[in-house]
Amino acid sequence: MSSSSVAPPVKPPMRDALVTAAFRLFLEHGYEQTTVDDIVALAGVGRRSFFRYFPSKEDVVFPDHEGCLADMTAFLAAGDPECEPVRRVCDAARLVLRMYAENPTFSVQRYRLTKQVPGLRAYELSVVWRYERALADYLRGRYAGRPDGTLRADVIAAAVVAAHNNALRSWLRSDGRGDPDETVGHALGYVQDAFGTEPAAPAPGGTAAALFGGPVEHPDDVVVLVSRRDAPLWRVVQEIETAFGRA
Amino acid sequence: MSSSSVAPPVKPPMRDALVTAAFRLFLEHGYEQTTVDDIVALAGVGRRSFFRYFPSKEDVVFPDHEGCLADMTAFLAAGDPECEPVRRVCDAARLVLRMYAENPTFSVQRYRLTKQVPGLRAYELSVVWRYERALADYLRGRYAGRPDGTLRADVIAAAVVAAHNNALRSWLRSDGRGDPDETVGHALGYVQDAFGTEPAAPAPGGTAAALFGGPVEHPDDVVVLVSRRDAPLWRVVQEIETAFGRA
Repeated sequence: MSSSSVAPPVKPPMRDALVTAAFRLFLEHGYEQTTVDDIVALAGVGRRSFFRYFPSKEDVVFPDHEGCLADMTAFLAAGDPECEPVRRVCDAARLVLRMYAENPTFSVQRYRLTKQVPGLRAYELSVVWRYERALADYLRGRYAGRPDGTLRADVIAAAVVAAHNNALRSWLRSDGRGDPDETVGHALGYVQDAFGTEPAAPAPGGTAAALFGGPVEHPDDVVVLVSRRDAPLWRVVQEIETAFGRA
Repeated sequence: MSSSSVAPPVKPPMRDALVTAAFRLFLEHGYEQTTVDDIVALAGVGRRSFFRYFPSKEDVVFPDHEGCLADMTAFLAAGDPECEPVRRVCDAARLVLRMYAENPTFSVQRYRLTKQVPGLRAYELSVVWRYERALADYLRGRYAGRPDGTLRADVIAAAVVAAHNNALRSWLRSDGRGDPDETVGHALGYVQDAFGTEPAAPAPGGTAAALFGGPVEHPDDVVVLVSRRDAPLWRVVQEIETAFGRA
């Protein structure tokens, strides 16, 4: 094959070149020891180009989060108003996972770097907090006017983020091996089980009629019945007949 | 009353004097405009005294969190190994509330300051994260060896912190009026309802025998039964008899 038939190498966009140069230097010399001048020298661009894309050295470590936050917010805003809210925020969390899973090597490198540098850990906390607020704001809208609407929204958003991050971290600690979708799906399923229906709070008890929490409809048409163990059996059966629509 | 009968004013400890001086200046001139030199001049102490108590200007805004974190960790470590884990972390969260509730004026001033200064917001996020880790570490110990132990621990810790903070913020926004115990208790009760028992996950279904999630014992001897709506009634009743120990 003659050299003239080889397509010229596609030059990566300047932003990507800056990220690549930065991570090469961070890994070789350490994050603190690397300056923005070092990065732009290796990438072959000027300082102003760096700051056009990244407000600070910290931002080059998390180049995808702004875009991912925007995607997540758009995804939530575009949702069918009838869709189950907890399922929707779990699906939104999967967008973040996809960003990590698309580039396992980079994600694992960043994970190790972030663990070593306290300033990056603080930066990451603020990013996580923005994801959590995006989910909570969506849920607050969906639960507006309902009792404990903001409480439910804040708690569920925090639970979704914690479940996602628990599964994501275990994937990153395994050096990004395998497909994290299943682990994250399992973790988010735990949150959906806990919150995907109205909370089935046991009634305080007293009279037989008050022994029951109300039967609650699950989106998959599952009935959850809560009862005190010492309730009369006939009362339980009657309640079940009502819940199953067979009374 | 003669002046000689008046007890000499008790001089507040130097640490408290520094906090008082700092907040007076923050409120009068703004946080950014106040230097450590301004604070020590007003408190009448030297710079070295300031840094003996506070590593940085940010730390003087949150003078009680280190002590509160230590109290919380000790409280969790001292718990009866038989106590219900979710209840225990909710009680631990109440220790944080007490710190805020002991001094409503100071807590409300700090809340307003933190909202205005991004650097303080970042500091607060790192403090909240440390509380969350303390709760999660305790739960990880309690759930060690159980399926999804770290997942449950991380999700419940995040939910407890979110519920506490939702209620705390609503009290702070009301200028610290009234008793926040009830609001926070209600918020933590929501988390206890969601997680205080084993998650009652519906089985995937298929055969009649697989239509049921297992009956789960609640500490207050409540039975939670999960069933598909289309399950045969005789099968549901049989399952209930077993759960109630009457089969």
